[in-house]
Amino acid sequence: ISKEVAKLLELKAQLGSDEGKHKFVLKTPKGTRDYSPKQMAIRERVFNAIITCFKRHGAEVIDTPVFELKETLTGKYGEDSKLIYDLKDQGGELLSLRYDLTVPFARYLAMNKITNIKRYHIAKVYRRDNPAMTKGRYREFYQCDFDIAGQFDPMIPDAECLKIVHEILSDLQLGDFLVKVNDRRILDGMFAVCGVPDSKFRTICSSVDKLDKMPWEEVRSEMVGEKGLSPEAADHIGEYVQLHGGLNLVEQLLQDPKLSQNKLAKEGLGDMKLLFEYLTLFGITGKISFDLSLARGLDYYTGVIFEAVLVQQENDHVEESVSIGSVAGGGRYDGLVGMFDPKGRKVPCVGVSIGIERIFSILEQRLEASEEKIRTTETQVLVASAQKKLLEERLKLIAELWEAGIKAEILYKKNPKLLNQLQYCEETGIPLVAIVGEQELKDGVVKLRVVSTREEVNVRREMLVEEIRTRTSQ
Amino acid sequence: ISKEVAKLLELKAQLGSDEGKHKFVLKTPKGTRDYSPKQMAIRERVFNAIITCFKRHGAEVIDTPVFELKETLTGKYGEDSKLIYDLKDQGGELLSLRYDLTVPFARYLAMNKITNIKRYHIAKVYRRDNPAMTKGRYREFYQCDFDIAGQFDPMIPDAECLKIVHEILSDLQLGDFLVKVNDRRILDGMFAVCGVPDSKFRTICSSVDKLDKMPWEEVRSEMVGEKGLSPEAADHIGEYVQLHGGLNLVEQLLQDPKLSQNKLAKEGLGDMKLLFEYLTLFGITGKISFDLSLARGLDYYTGVIFEAVLVQQENDHVEESVSIGSVAGGGRYDGLVGMFDPKGRKVPCVGVSIGIERIFSILEQRLEASEEKIRTTETQVLVASAQKKLLEERLKLIAELWEAGIKAEILYKKNPKLLNQLQYCEETGIPLVAIVGEQELKDGVVKLRVVSTREEVNVRREMLVEEIRTRTSQ
Repeated sequence: ISKEVAKLLELKAQLGSDEGKHKFVLKTPKGTRDYSPKQMAIRERVFNAIITCFKRHGAEVIDTPVFELKETLTGKYGEDSKLIYDLKDQGGELLSLRYDLTVPFARYLAMNKITNIKRYHIAKVYRRDNPAMTKGRYREFYQCDFDIAGQFDPMIPDAECLKIVHEILSDLQLGDFLVKVNDRRILDGMFAVCGVPDSKFRTICSSVDKLDKMPWEEVRSEMVGEKGLSPEAADHIGEYVQLHGGLNLVEQLLQDPKLSQNKLAKEGLGDMKLLFEYLTLFGITGKISFDLSLARGLDYYTGVIFEAVLVQQENDHVEESVSIGSVAGGGRYDGLVGMFDPKGRKVPCVGVSIGIERIFSILEQRLEASEEKIRTTETQVLVASAQKKLLEERLKLIAELWEAGIKAEILYKKNPKLLNQLQYCEETGIPLVAIVGEQELKDGVVKLRVVSTREEVNVRREMLVEEIRTRTSQ
Repeated sequence: ISKEVAKLLELKAQLGSDEGKHKFVLKTPKGTRDYSPKQMAIRERVFNAIITCFKRHGAEVIDTPVFELKETLTGKYGEDSKLIYDLKDQGGELLSLRYDLTVPFARYLAMNKITNIKRYHIAKVYRRDNPAMTKGRYREFYQCDFDIAGQFDPMIPDAECLKIVHEILSDLQLGDFLVKVNDRRILDGMFAVCGVPDSKFRTICSSVDKLDKMPWEEVRSEMVGEKGLSPEAADHIGEYVQLHGGLNLVEQLLQDPKLSQNKLAKEGLGDMKLLFEYLTLFGITGKISFDLSLARGLDYYTGVIFEAVLVQQENDHVEESVSIGSVAGGGRYDGLVGMFDPKGRKVPCVGVSIGIERIFSILEQRLEASEEKIRTTETQVLVASAQKKLLEERLKLIAELWEAGIKAEILYKKNPKLLNQLQYCEETGIPLVAIVGEQELKDGVVKLRVVSTREEVNVRREMLVEEIRTRTSQ
């Protein structure tokens, strides 16, 4: 008996696990999402604005694989390297999903011995970060990168990158924004004059990077407590990082008795001055802030760094503006390509990366709130019939329209009701209906109906394409 | 001494390994590639043709993540499942890179309870296959999918999918092509009447699928030797799979004493007849071949299946046309969405997938062979100067042009030589040069030079934008 029971239990367990097959979780992986047709329509608007700007500045476009050899990414991202997605070792090469588009770009330049290019690249990147999807922070997200590589005169390409950020954020009408600018050399010079040991530059830099999310007190205690910085050095840094302003601040710091003695800081401040001169010619200094608290976490920056944030006036009474997060960032990385070149040949680069997820969230919310109905297809005409047994005539007519490049649909029913066909147009925003009926076929005409006005007009069949084109061109 | 030697050796080893850091392989992962700007220009042409067609047929667009939960992909691809890329288990969910766009689409429909949609999706998919890059077989490659989901009257959406393949391949002018059509029900009916046991249908089906790459003798010996099919059954299959033709063959098989007795085969043949009637109305039967050897490897197909191949006349004397590989494929999969629905609710689907890699290879080779120079930017004008110290004037002018939406570039040099500036235009195909000089500044004009003709004309500064627009609009 116990044997039989055991058998039955085993059988039951098997059945149970079979049932279980249908119980798997129906979801996308953590930190990722699908884009519905409506969301895609918004996304394409954003991409269009960005690509139009990149092309206006004469950029070419490239693409690279979604994964790279693991070693290609090693040693480029500092403390963030732990967020890289690795692929399983299934025999063969060890691979990782790209973490940004900058390192693949540098690998591409070194591999193809390119010393001079202006290119954009729009693609998804992957970070095993803690997702906060309401804030637009995903594990799979788009970056829209524009970079200028080559040996050029100082700050001209750097100024163009900032101009691009300014153009795109203005164009998208996301509200007020601010582009914070700093320079790795100014930061390093500042650390040096504050008494930070060389070996601690990078780690203290990533503490400073947290100032946009944490108050100074917490950052200070991380520096002193976790990272073993002397309290004096920390306090000294604390004085500098509260400074922000424009060309005046640059000139003030060029006079700073300590900073002006530091070679790196002096170089950085000199270039910052030049940058502000070019930005003045571009007419965009109003939204640019030289900000000593801006650090940027990534290891590879060597010169100018910047980050654009959207700012929101809380209300009219409160002067203070509240940052609702970074939407673009970038900087100069003159050493990265050299890390890939067998002979270490350097290619100076500067670039900007636009993050569309937050921008997209804002536009999506705005659209939800508005009355605007967004179309998800471009169909110009529905080919319909008023009577039964006209499927073949509908198929013949729609083939003629497709042949002529008209965007046309039919309902996939043998005998659809006219009401259902009209309703489909209302729902999807199709502006015209081309109705075939027995009488129309005899007369060699098609009845063209304007959905919004219900106006109907008979059009000679050979004139139909022209008539549809005229009525749907704006 | 030996201690010192040991220390030195250790030091040497350390140095060696440091040097080694620079010796890593500079390449993209096996089976993948970068796209250069020139290649991107070709790719965008192909995408444009495909997207234009999808939109002409009224499709919406969606996007899904590059990876899915591993279990989402499990049990969908039959023998090909071993080619799926898994991600490393880094804590959290087990993930795999998508293998096609069809399974993510079905998951999307079930997850969002969508029973009715016509959508396209263009994205990269991943297969750990043996790459053959000269033939356009990659491990990372694009699929351009168009699918119609919903409960409709038979074969109307199926016919539209074939129409789309026909339109796209005609539009791309790749040379002659042929779309092979079959039906899983006809295959299964054929297997049944040939005496293949039910349990061997799928595995025998994947043997038949190899007929486009292997001669029948090899496929037969795989069936009999590896898969244990009786020689009689194999020979019987061998007779059927050599059949191909049009509506005549469908009607002939509807009279076949064995097949006509099989319920599945009869259903399939009835629908095939209907399909050919619709394709006749679309006027495209000339390039459609009902082919009993077409099997398609994937598990999820339930009805019509098809595959488009490019055919090449070897030369004028040889009648036989040579297949140079599949460029599109698809079929009906009525059960796939139900596999994801908790209650097993089915959503009938049919779709087509265009593979662009081979198409792209052909167009790339054709472009190499031709004299056509392909531009990789859209820049309309280079802002140049003939004298030194005019960087500021160039920056001011280019900002004006950008503001007006003109695509413009400058060289990133303080004092570039005019010759270098003109050369840059020749190399990159920029048609116009706007030259600022001291005299022009005094006169309130800009000298506009047409690169191709060397014609130069002074244009009043306030008219410049209009003049550039006129000269670069075609």
